[in-house]
Order: sequence, then C-alpha cells, then structure tokens
Amino acid sequence: MSVFKSSRRSGILALLLSLSFAAVLRAALPEPPQAVEQWGIFELALQGPSEGNPFLEVDFSAEFTNGTVTVRVPGFYDGDGVYRVRFMPETKGEWRYVTRANRWGLTGKLGTFVATAPQAGNHGPVRVHNTYHFAYADGTSYKPFGTTSYSWVHRPVAMQEQTLQTLAAHRFNKIRMAVLPQDHGTKYHPTTLFPFVGTPPTEWDFTRFNPEFFQNLELRVGQLRELGIECDLILFHPYGKKWNFETMSAETDERYLRYVVARLAAYRNIWWSLGNEYDFLRTKTEADWDRFFQIVQQADPHNHLRSIHNGFDLYNNNHPWVTHASIQNGAAAEDAGRAQLYRDVWRKPVVYDEVKYEGDCIRRWGNLSAPELVHRFWSCVVVGTYASHSEYFEVPEDLVWLGQGVRLLGQSPARIAFLRQILEEGPAEGVEPSDKWQEPIGMGGKSGEYYLVYFGREAPAEWAFQLFKKGVGEGMRFQVDLIDAWEMTITPLPGEFVLKRKDNYHFVDVNERTIALGGKPYQALRIRRLGTDGTPIKFELPTE
Amino acid sequence: MSVFKSSRRSGILALLLSLSFAAVLRAALPEPPQAVEQWGIFELALQGPSEGNPFLEVDFSAEFTNGTVTVRVPGFYDGDGVYRVRFMPETKGEWRYVTRANRWGLTGKLGTFVATAPQAGNHGPVRVHNTYHFAYADGTSYKPFGTTSYSWVHRPVAMQEQTLQTLAAHRFNKIRMAVLPQDHGTKYHPTTLFPFVGTPPTEWDFTRFNPEFFQNLELRVGQLRELGIECDLILFHPYGKKWNFETMSAETDERYLRYVVARLAAYRNIWWSLGNEYDFLRTKTEADWDRFFQIVQQADPHNHLRSIHNGFDLYNNNHPWVTHASIQNGAAAEDAGRAQLYRDVWRKPVVYDEVKYEGDCIRRWGNLSAPELVHRFWSCVVVGTYASHSEYFEVPEDLVWLGQGVRLLGQSPARIAFLRQILEEGPAEGVEPSDKWQEPIGMGGKSGEYYLVYFGREAPAEWAFQLFKKGVGEGMRFQVDLIDAWEMTITPLPGEFVLKRKDNYHFVDVNERTIALGGKPYQALRIRRLGTDGTPIKFELPTE
Repeated sequence: MSVFKSSRRSGILALLLSLSFAAVLRAALPEPPQAVEQWGIFELALQGPSEGNPFLEVDFSAEFTNGTVTVRVPGFYDGDGVYRVRFMPETKGEWRYVTRANRWGLTGKLGTFVATAPQAGNHGPVRVHNTYHFAYADGTSYKPFGTTSYSWVHRPVAMQEQTLQTLAAHRFNKIRMAVLPQDHGTKYHPTTLFPFVGTPPTEWDFTRFNPEFFQNLELRVGQLRELGIECDLILFHPYGKKWNFETMSAETDERYLRYVVARLAAYRNIWWSLGNEYDFLRTKTEADWDRFFQIVQQADPHNHLRSIHNGFDLYNNNHPWVTHASIQNGAAAEDAGRAQLYRDVWRKPVVYDEVKYEGDCIRRWGNLSAPELVHRFWSCVVVGTYASHSEYFEVPEDLVWLGQGVRLLGQSPARIAFLRQILEEGPAEGVEPSDKWQEPIGMGGKSGEYYLVYFGREAPAEWAFQLFKKGVGEGMRFQVDLIDAWEMTITPLPGEFVLKRKDNYHFVDVNERTIALGGKPYQALRIRRLGTDGTPIKFELPTE
Repeated sequence: MSVFKSSRRSGILALLLSLSFAAVLRAALPEPPQAVEQWGIFELALQGPSEGNPFLEVDFSAEFTNGTVTVRVPGFYDGDGVYRVRFMPETKGEWRYVTRANRWGLTGKLGTFVATAPQAGNHGPVRVHNTYHFAYADGTSYKPFGTTSYSWVHRPVAMQEQTLQTLAAHRFNKIRMAVLPQDHGTKYHPTTLFPFVGTPPTEWDFTRFNPEFFQNLELRVGQLRELGIECDLILFHPYGKKWNFETMSAETDERYLRYVVARLAAYRNIWWSLGNEYDFLRTKTEADWDRFFQIVQQADPHNHLRSIHNGFDLYNNNHPWVTHASIQNGAAAEDAGRAQLYRDVWRKPVVYDEVKYEGDCIRRWGNLSAPELVHRFWSCVVVGTYASHSEYFEVPEDLVWLGQGVRLLGQSPARIAFLRQILEEGPAEGVEPSDKWQEPIGMGGKSGEYYLVYFGREAPAEWAFQLFKKGVGEGMRFQVDLIDAWEMTITPLPGEFVLKRKDNYHFVDVNERTIALGGKPYQALRIRRLGTDGTPIKFELPTE
C-alpha cells in the first residue's frame, strides 16, 4: 500500500529528528503488544511533547489496516507527555498501523500485531440485530437487562469497589452511568475527581482534561466488561449545574466528546448515551443533539450503539445516527399494548431505560413496589421491547443506588434475573408480538414455536388456550409452563395442547382446554412446540 | 413589476398570432369572475389547442400576485380544447394574474379580480394549530370528527346524491375518500367512470386523463365543502388491482398527482392523503412515497394538509412534508394511555383515522359494537388526539358505508356528534393530557380551566375528585358535569368543588368530595372552572 511506503519514510525522518531527550523518556513506555484477542484493546503509547497545551495543539491518531479494512483511530493525550491510541480489532489476523501527528516524534510510527481468537466470555460489541433486538458481534444473542447508577464512578474508591461487588452478585448485563458528575446526593461523599483541570466548583480550564479522572473511568468500564456488563455511558446530563459542565462552549463540547470517544471506543462494552433527560438540559437545542450524535458517529471507529434518553420530549429516533430508542416512560411500560407501540414508529430496538424505580422516594418516579417494577419488565419483554431497573430507597448517607451505587436493597433484581433466564432460553433472535395491535393480553414469541403470555396485574381465574394463526396448523403439539413472575416458579402443565382451527384468526386445543391461573396477579405462560421426540423446542443459549 | 411588463408584451404578441378559429371558440367560454370570496375559487378558462395530446404536450399555468405574494399555480387541460387554472386567494384585495404556456394562445393572458370577504361558513382551509390540533385559516377552531367512504363518488349518480343527503343529516366534518376506484364491493353497481381514457379493466391510455371523471369528483368535493366537510382525498390505495392503477410508471404516477393537484388544490376543503394502507401497496417503495409527498407539496400552491395512512407499517411521520399523522391502529385507541403515546413521537396532530369500524363484518376490522367505537373516540379525544368513524354492516347489494356510502345504519354517529358538540364547547386550542404519562385514567383539557375525564369500559362506582397541580391553586372553584357518553346525557352535579392541596402532585376538594359514577361503563366528567360570576368558563364556539 502506497500509504505505508510514504509513512515509513516520514517515520524514519521523524526518528532522525527526535533523537533527543524525548527518546530516552520513550524507552520507559511499554512496548506495544504483539498479540491482542479479537475485540480486545490494542494500545500504543508514545512519549511526546508536554509543553504548551497538548490537548489543543497536538493531533495524534493512527491508521490500522488488515489489508482489507483501514480504520482511522483518534488518539489522545494522557498527560506527562504520553500519547495513546487504542484500537479494537474487529477481525482476527495481522494488523499493521502507522501513526499520524502534527509532531515529528509522534508521527509515522509503524508496527504490527496479531488479533487472536477471542477468549471465553468475549463476544465482541453489541449490535442491533433483527431490527428490534440485539446480538454480540459474534452472533451470540444479547438481551438487555440493565440497571442505572449515574454517579457510582464519582464516589470514593472503596464505594466504587462495593458497587462492582454488588453488580457481580446480581444479573444485570448493562448499566447506565454518567461521565460527568452529578451535583446532588453528594453531601456525604463529595466528588473529588473532575474531568477538567481546575478548582471546583467552577474554576475550570476547559482546554485541559484531567487524565486521572478518565483513567479511573476506564478502569471501571474495563471491570464492567470483565463482568459481562455493557456500559451505557451518558455523555451529557442536566444534573451538574453547579459545575458549569452544562454551559460549555460548542467547541468545548465537541472536544470533550472527541476525547471521551478517543479514550473509550476500544472498550467493546461501550454504548454511547448522548444525553440523559436531554430535553431538561435547556442549555442545548435539538440541533446541538443532532450535532453531538454526528460527532460521536464520525469519531468512533467502532460504531458503538448510540441513543439518547428523554425527559418529557422524545427525540426523533428516526434519525439515522440513532441505533435504538432509549425511552423514559413509566406509563408505556405498564401495559404490553402500550409498550409495543413505539416499536412501530422507529423500527429500531426500544429499551424502556426508565420505567420509574423501585423504592420509597417521595417523588413518584422513585416509589414503585418491587412487584410493579417486575410487572413493567414483563409487560415490555413479552412484546419484544426491553426495560431497565434502578432503585431509590431513602437510606442514610444518600446511599441511593440510582445515584451512588454501592448496594441494592430491593426485591426486584432477583425477579428480573429470573425473567432474563427465561428470555435467554427463548428464541435467540428475540420475541415478537404474536398478533400486533390485536392481542388483548401481552403475548409474543416466535410464531409456531415459542410464546410467552403475560396476564399482568389482572388476576384471571383461567385462560382459554389459543394461538394466532401465523405459523401454526392443525395437529401441532405444544407444552405449556405456568410461570409465577413474582414467586419465580415454573410449573409444567400436564399433557399437551394439540391445535385445531377455531375461526379465521385463531387455533385452539382440540379439547378446547382452558388453563387455570389461580386468580393471582403476575402470572405468565410459556408455550413451546413439541418436537418429534416429545420434548419442547430448545434454542441455543448464550454462553457467558 | 417587470415580470408583468414582459408578460403583457408576449400577451399582445400571442393575441395577434391567435386571431384564428380558436378565437371564435374562446368567445364561448365564460368571462373570468371580477370578484371571488377569500378562500373561494377563482377560475380562468381559455380555449387552446386540442390536437395532439394536450395532457402531455401543453404546459399551462398562471402566476397570481397581490403585489406582496406571488403564487405560481399549475393549470390543467379539461378536454375539448379547454384549459383551466384555479386559484384560491388566501388574502382579500386585488389580485392580478398572467398565464404562462408553451402555446401562444394560452400564454400571457392578463387579468385582475378582487378577493372579497368570505361568506358565512367559509373559514378557509384547515391548518395545523397548536402543534397537536387544527384550526381554519381564519383562526376558527376545527376539531376533526370524520368518517370514511372510499368509493362513494364511483357509484351511480343517484347513490352519490343519497350519500350527500346522509352526510348532510349527520355531523361528520371530514370524509376520507379515494380518487381511484376500488375493485371490490362493486358487483351490483359496477364502476363506469374512470380517471384515464380507455377500456376497462386494463386498456388505458395513461397519457390521457378523462375530464368527465374529474368533473364529477370536483362536483362532489365542492358539495362537501358546502356541507362544511373536509375532503381527505386518498391519492393511492391497494384496492384497485384489476385496473392496473397500482402499477403505473413513475412518470404516470407523477403526472397523475400533478393533474389531481392542479384540478383540486383551489378547493379549500381538500386534504391530501397520499396513500391508504400505503404499505399494502407493494408496488411502491418508501422512497416512492417520499417522492409523492414532495411532488404534492411542490405542486400545491395552497399547501393543504398532507398525511399518509398506514396498514401494518408506520410511515416516518417525522418527515417535514407530513403535516399530521393519519393512523390505523384500533388497539391504540382502546385506551387513552395508549392513544396519547404517538403524539410525543411526531409532535404533530394524531388522527386515528382507522380504529376499526362499527359493524358486523366477519373480519375483525369491521365488527365493533357501537359502544366500543364510541369508547375509542372518547379515549382518543380526552388526551388530545382524534378519531374517525366508518361502518361495515353486511347488507344487500353491498351497500356498505365504508365502500359505497349511501346510508348509515349504525348507532355510533349520534354519539360521535354528541362528543363533537362537547369538544367544540371546550377550549378552542384543543385539549392536552393534563398530566402526561401519569394519569391512570383518560384526562385532558386546559390546565386550571377545563378538564374532560373519561372512565372507559371500567364501571367505577366513584371517583375521588382531584386535579394535577399544573395551573391550579388553593381556593379555585370548579363545577362538574357527569356525562354518559352512550346515553348522551349531561348532568350538572350540585355545588362546587373548591381546591386544596393534597400532596406534591395533586389538589382535591376542600371537603374531599367524591363523585358517584353509578358503576356504569362509558362515564365521563366535564370539570369547568367557575368565574367570579359563579358560572363555568366559556370558550368561543366555532361558527358554522
């Protein structure tokens, strides 16, 4: 490739010119790795100038190629004269790189490494799959069951460690968390580390990032990755007024976005959440959000998932730079008939990332009972959308999970894990509403093979077994499990259900069997087709 | 204006050149009017060439100006050598015009007329107003209460007259109807008039329109206008397979759209519905619909309302050329909590133009009971969306209102008219959800002044009076009417309701009054603030 020939020449030139004191310092940096697993992080660190303002003045990037794909990757200044560039190889095999910079000591550096087979538990980044769903890059199904803790990485280190232990002990596979600190809920544990150099609350040099802040953030993102937890990273939010991060100039906003992306895009578990309650951040316009999306999309060499989370006003998720809808709407999640409506407008995955929280908060967004939060998860999930958890219990020292992390007190996480297990044992491609806009109950699945039925808060005594005509025929045999979403029990019903046509739309059991539901709330059914061996259909399970 | 000077010259030149046999024929056409009411139709007819194919070969248009606004208006060929251009003056005062054509006899014709004050009942075209609502151009509130009869203008003339009589006897103020005929439901009354010259079913000359067909359509649109009924005109639909109107070339599609717009855009009651169940018309792509919208938007000098009606897939109503959402979704209209969700995604008026129909059709889209259809209207209306009616009763000779018009048999129209009356006595700017995403019941209005509460199919025994905090304060006094949506009764409750704060979100009556609802379904409340004179607040009513 001609680009490499000329680079090599300038590399040699650079080498000759930089045989100086800097060359001695450079020796202190580790050699770049010779091998990195696919979807792991290849990192190159170079010593360069520290005078002036490197954040503003030094452009540093690298071009990676495997001979077929060439990827331009922005680098970043990490303080103390160290420049880094991080790359997540998306295919196995040999990769070569050459650095680019407007400084002789940083440009034209060449190297190669090999991307090896991913290790166990590494499935690559999550992508949109099957329009409304997700899968890891290696094709493994990914079904989001997330939680939210905005500021856990801004708490004292010991608390951050406790949060990680809590996450490890639960089954959430996504967390929504903010880069920028909040200014509430911190009276007992004041924030001490900030993304910019300066003196809190407002004396910032917005032209200089604080590497220590970002090194801690990266440490935590990496630890989440090891726990199998996607990091849905919130780039802006309206909760930090006293620090003036919400009134930065357009230029600073852009530099901040580019810096975050340059540091974190090589972490395969990163998702970009452009804003949280974006419309409450009244210092930005919708045009600003459009611009932020496009900056992130352009800067991210790995094309991670991108969304924006609303307060009162929904963003136009039809924009091509939005990969999925990240919705706040408690009411929509109360009923499967509501939950599914947003799928149709955007034809993208819908994640109800805020359906109100389990807790005892005086404010109504944080006072759901655990059964009600679990109910909302089921209402969303059975019609092919997703929900997220958080909790807000009034406890001493502001140890509220939503803001601070540390510990979980609620009763919903175990039930959410139970639902996750059920969904993961279902169709890898996700469940779809079985009869869109027509089902009086929440019912979805994979037509003719697998169905989940959820009866919600109603406490029906029974349900007359019937399936929508799509994908089914007379004589098909099904096995049914009765599920108690709250008690976390799965009870196989005796015998089979064998189909006969009922009318123009539905099939029922040949004996018109009815299923007793016990008159309890939160009951569900799993209906699986029986194979020729008489056992229910099985789907490939995601591996950890 | 220089444009007029040069036009005048070419006009004189054209006059000299056309002193021929055509000039004799021209004398037979009426003189253009000297005065036209604002939002009426100014029509200029000129005699021109009839040889060759005027539809393809002759470009004819006119430029209208009042000195401030200049509007280019496409004309059309009406057969027999007659060319017409129609213009709806949107402001009062003197207007001048000059014609443009690629034929000497049709170009450079000059004239003036005066647009006079509109007559009673003429409020101009309907526009979007207050984001989610509509108003006529003169500011008068317009609240759509429409019906649908796709093919009434394609039935025998006597039946068309009966349809008009039926419409005159009811209170619908919008009708959805198709330009192109349907090929079903016509075995007793075959379609005889077609938009193109040729022999049915498929021997069409798609380069020649049939003026007689369009003259009848215009007659009917004009009669609807006189009845105060907006014509939501469907430009394409998937119900005419046997005539091949669904497989016309892109060029023919465009010529057809431009011809319809040129003929009908001067009718102030026209709305453009680009497609009905557009996604079932599998011969078109989404890119085609985008293009059709843009053709219509560009061709229509009067910028009438534009929408598209879905089957299974929602169009991207965020596109700037869509003025409002015209939705098919019966399930969304079953519950106010669902109905309001689409408002947020498009921030445009949402009209549920198909919520299933009253009737006894074997298919489930046409078998609603009248109470159920009325229930859906109320569910939509109390949260600031709108619904449309139609009916499908299996009767002799295919006299189904949905397809054929003629007569209405159902019980819902009277109840829909009752609701229209209530809504029109409410805030002119439309009702808004009183506490978006939070109200467990359907409740909307104008905060602090006026509320409608609807209890739906539930049959609650009572309701504890409470209002969301927005716009209200302690001591405010309200009067309440109990409404039976089905029985069409309005019963004022004795006494007043005087507010005191209940909690962080709500106000209740100082005596914590509860309202008895009688345990019946379809009950509603109207809550109006009392003025200093002790009478409920009144809003300006739309005049007929």
